[in-house]
Amino acid sequence: MSEQLATVAKRAREAATVLALATRAQKDGALEAMAQALLDSADRVLAANAADVATAEETDTPAHLVDRLRLDRDRVASMARGLRDVAGLPDPVGEVLRGSTLPNGLELRQVRVPFGVVGVIYEARPNVTADAAGLCLKSGNAVLLRGSSSALHSNTMIVEVLREAVASAGLPADCVALVPGEGHEPVKALMRARGLVDVLIPRGGAGLIRSVVEESTVPVIETGVGNCHVYVDADADLEAALAIVMNSKTQRPSVCNAAESLLVHEAVAEAFVPRVVAALQGAGVSVHGDPRFAAVEGVVPATDADWDTEYLGLEISAAVVADLDAAITHIRQHSSGHTEAIVTGSQAAARRFVAEVDAAAVMVNASTRFTDGGEFGFGAEIGISTQKLHARGPLGLPEMTSSKYVVTGDGHVR
Amino acid sequence: MSEQLATVAKRAREAATVLALATRAQKDGALEAMAQALLDSADRVLAANAADVATAEETDTPAHLVDRLRLDRDRVASMARGLRDVAGLPDPVGEVLRGSTLPNGLELRQVRVPFGVVGVIYEARPNVTADAAGLCLKSGNAVLLRGSSSALHSNTMIVEVLREAVASAGLPADCVALVPGEGHEPVKALMRARGLVDVLIPRGGAGLIRSVVEESTVPVIETGVGNCHVYVDADADLEAALAIVMNSKTQRPSVCNAAESLLVHEAVAEAFVPRVVAALQGAGVSVHGDPRFAAVEGVVPATDADWDTEYLGLEISAAVVADLDAAITHIRQHSSGHTEAIVTGSQAAARRFVAEVDAAAVMVNASTRFTDGGEFGFGAEIGISTQKLHARGPLGLPEMTSSKYVVTGDGHVR
Repeated sequence: MSEQLATVAKRAREAATVLALATRAQKDGALEAMAQALLDSADRVLAANAADVATAEETDTPAHLVDRLRLDRDRVASMARGLRDVAGLPDPVGEVLRGSTLPNGLELRQVRVPFGVVGVIYEARPNVTADAAGLCLKSGNAVLLRGSSSALHSNTMIVEVLREAVASAGLPADCVALVPGEGHEPVKALMRARGLVDVLIPRGGAGLIRSVVEESTVPVIETGVGNCHVYVDADADLEAALAIVMNSKTQRPSVCNAAESLLVHEAVAEAFVPRVVAALQGAGVSVHGDPRFAAVEGVVPATDADWDTEYLGLEISAAVVADLDAAITHIRQHSSGHTEAIVTGSQAAARRFVAEVDAAAVMVNASTRFTDGGEFGFGAEIGISTQKLHARGPLGLPEMTSSKYVVTGDGHVR
Repeated sequence: MSEQLATVAKRAREAATVLALATRAQKDGALEAMAQALLDSADRVLAANAADVATAEETDTPAHLVDRLRLDRDRVASMARGLRDVAGLPDPVGEVLRGSTLPNGLELRQVRVPFGVVGVIYEARPNVTADAAGLCLKSGNAVLLRGSSSALHSNTMIVEVLREAVASAGLPADCVALVPGEGHEPVKALMRARGLVDVLIPRGGAGLIRSVVEESTVPVIETGVGNCHVYVDADADLEAALAIVMNSKTQRPSVCNAAESLLVHEAVAEAFVPRVVAALQGAGVSVHGDPRFAAVEGVVPATDADWDTEYLGLEISAAVVADLDAAITHIRQHSSGHTEAIVTGSQAAARRFVAEVDAAAVMVNASTRFTDGGEFGFGAEIGISTQKLHARGPLGLPEMTSSKYVVTGDGHVR
C-alpha cells in the first residue's frame, strides 16, 4: 500500500476510536458547525468548483456531466441543509438490538456500534462529499472519501472546510479525509486496505461498482445499479398502470430507481400497448419493443442487449408476456435486484409477485421511484444497496453500523 | 468457471427458488427426514468414513486430525440430533423486521427472506456437512458444500443420504449439494461464482479464511479466528479471575473462543502472577510471558509473534500492563475482533472496556468460552463472524437471511 494512504487511514482509525465514543450532542454540534462552515465558506468552495468546471469545459466534457459537477449558492445551501437534516435524525449508535438474561444468569445485550473507518468511492457530484461525511460522522464512522478527479478542486476545498468545522466542534479533524494521490493507484490501495478500512461503499455507474466488487478485499456494500421493471398484470387498473409506468420512467430518468423495462400481460396488451407507447413517446421516451410492441409506429425493435440495459435516460424496453409466470421468469433473468413493480387488482397475483421476485424492493401498485431513503422515512441515505449481505435497499444511518455483543456476569464459567 | 460447477450451482439456484417459498412445516418435515435417514443409513456413512480414515492413517495424518475425521455411531446420532434441534427452532423467513404506513399512505414492510444459494467451505469434520445443510435448509437457502478432500468419501455419502431424504420430503434434492471436482480449482470457481452464489462462509483455520477473503468476489462472511484476551484489572476478584482464566484457556483449548492471551494489571501482578502461572502449568499449559511473567519458573520468554498467535492448544501468552489504558491499547493492537474479556469489580473500568474494545463479543466477569450460538440461546450456529458487515458474533438462523422491502399502494406515484 502507498505510504500516503496508510498514513491517512491510520489517522482515520485513530479519529474513529474517539468518534465512536462521542455523544449525540457532540456529533450534532459538529454537523451544525459543518453546515455553517459550508455557508460561510461558499465563496472558497465556488471558486474551487469554478476551476473544475473550467477544466471540464476545456476538455469537451458532455454538458450533462458538467451540470452535475457545477455548484452554485443554492447547491451549497442544499449541502448545508442536508447536514442539518442529519443532525436532526436519531443516533443509531448504542441502540440495543437484542437483550436477554440467559438461563445461567449472564446478561446478554447486542448493541449497535460504528463500523470504524468507511471508504466511499464516488463519481462527479461534489455534494456527495458533504452528504457522505455527514452520514458517516453521525453514525460514528471516520470516512475516507475518493471522488472523481474531475471534481478534485471542489472536493479538496469542501473537505478542508468540513475538517476545520469538525475540529472547531471538538472532534478530530481526521474524522473526514480525502484519499490522497492521483490516478487509479490510490483507489486500488484503498480497496486492498483490509484491516485499516472496515467497509467500502462505491457510489456511481455499473463499471465503477463492478471494479470495486471484483478488486476489493475490504468488505463492500454494492449500491445502485437498477434495471427496474414495471409489470402490468391482466387485472391491472390501466389508468393507474399508465400513471405508474410514466412516473417510474420519466419523473427522473437518470437515477437507479427509474424503470428501464415494461412488461404487459397479453390479456391487456391490445388495450394498453398503443396507449402506453403514445404516452411514452409523447414524453420523449424511445421505446425498444418486442415484436408486439414493435408493431406500433415509432417503436424500435429490441435487441437481446436491451433487456439488460440500464438506460438512465429517456428509453425503455417493452415486451408482452403470456402470463404472470412469464413475467416473473423474465424479471428473474434480467433483474439487477433493485426494484420491481407489479400493477394488479388481483390479490393472488400480488402475493405471488412479492414472494417470487427477488429484489431489494418490490412495489405493488406503486411507482419504482419510491425506493429511496427519504421516501421510506429514513431521513437520508448514502446509497441503495443491491446486495443481500448486511443491508438491502436504502442505506440509512442504522445500516451504517455494526453491532457488538456485551455479556455481563459475576464470575461465570462453563 | 468449470461447467461442472456452473451446472450444480444453477440447479441449486432453481432449488432455492422453490425452497424460498416452502412453509416451516415442509422444511421441518425435510429436517426430520434428514435426521432419520442418517440414522437409517449409519452403516453406509460409517463404511465411507472408514475409507477416509484408512487413507488418513496411511498418509501419516496427525492423530488429532484423524480423530476429527473419524465418525462412529454416537457421532452420527449426534448429527441426527442436531438436525432435529434445528427443526425445533423458529423459522426466520417471513419475519417482519420493520413496518409502517408512510405519510402518503404507502404501506412499507421489511421482511426476512433467504439469501438464495450459500456456499460453505470447511475443513476436516464431516459433521459440519449435516450441520450446515440443516441450518441452510431451515433458513430457506440451498447450500453448496465443499469439505476437505480428506473427508471426501464421508461427505459424499452424507450428502447422498441427505439429498434422498430432502427429495422424499417433497423438496428439491438440489437444496443440498457437494461442489464437484478435485483440487483447488473448484474452490476457486466457487469463490468467483458471483451471481450464482449469494454468500460464501469459510469455516476453518486462518489460512483458509484468509484465502477466501482475498480471492472471493462472492460476498463472504468471515468466521472464527480468535486471538481472545482475558484482562485482569486492578479491582478484580482474584478468585473469580483465576476461574475465568482457567476456564477460558483450558475448558476446550482447540476452539476459536478459547483465550490465547492474558493481561494482568500491575497492581495485582504480585499477588496474581505466581498463582495463575501455577494453575496454568498444573493444567499442562505452557506460558509465554513478558519479563514480569518470565521471572516465574517454567515460563518461556514471549517473542513478538506470541502476541498475535492463536495457539488453539495448551499455550498462552501473558503480560503485565501498567493500567486499563495499556490493556485496551494492547488488545486493540493484537485482537482478532472475536471475544475480549475483563475481570473487574470496578463499574467505571467495565464501562470503558466495553465501550473501547472493538470485538464481536466483550465479556465482563465471564469466560470467553460463552461466545457461542448455543450459549447465547440461538439454538445452533454455522460459525462465529469476526467481520463487521452483516453479522458479528454467532451466526444463528436469522443471520442466514437477507431482507426485502415490500411497498404496497393503490396507484401511488411521486
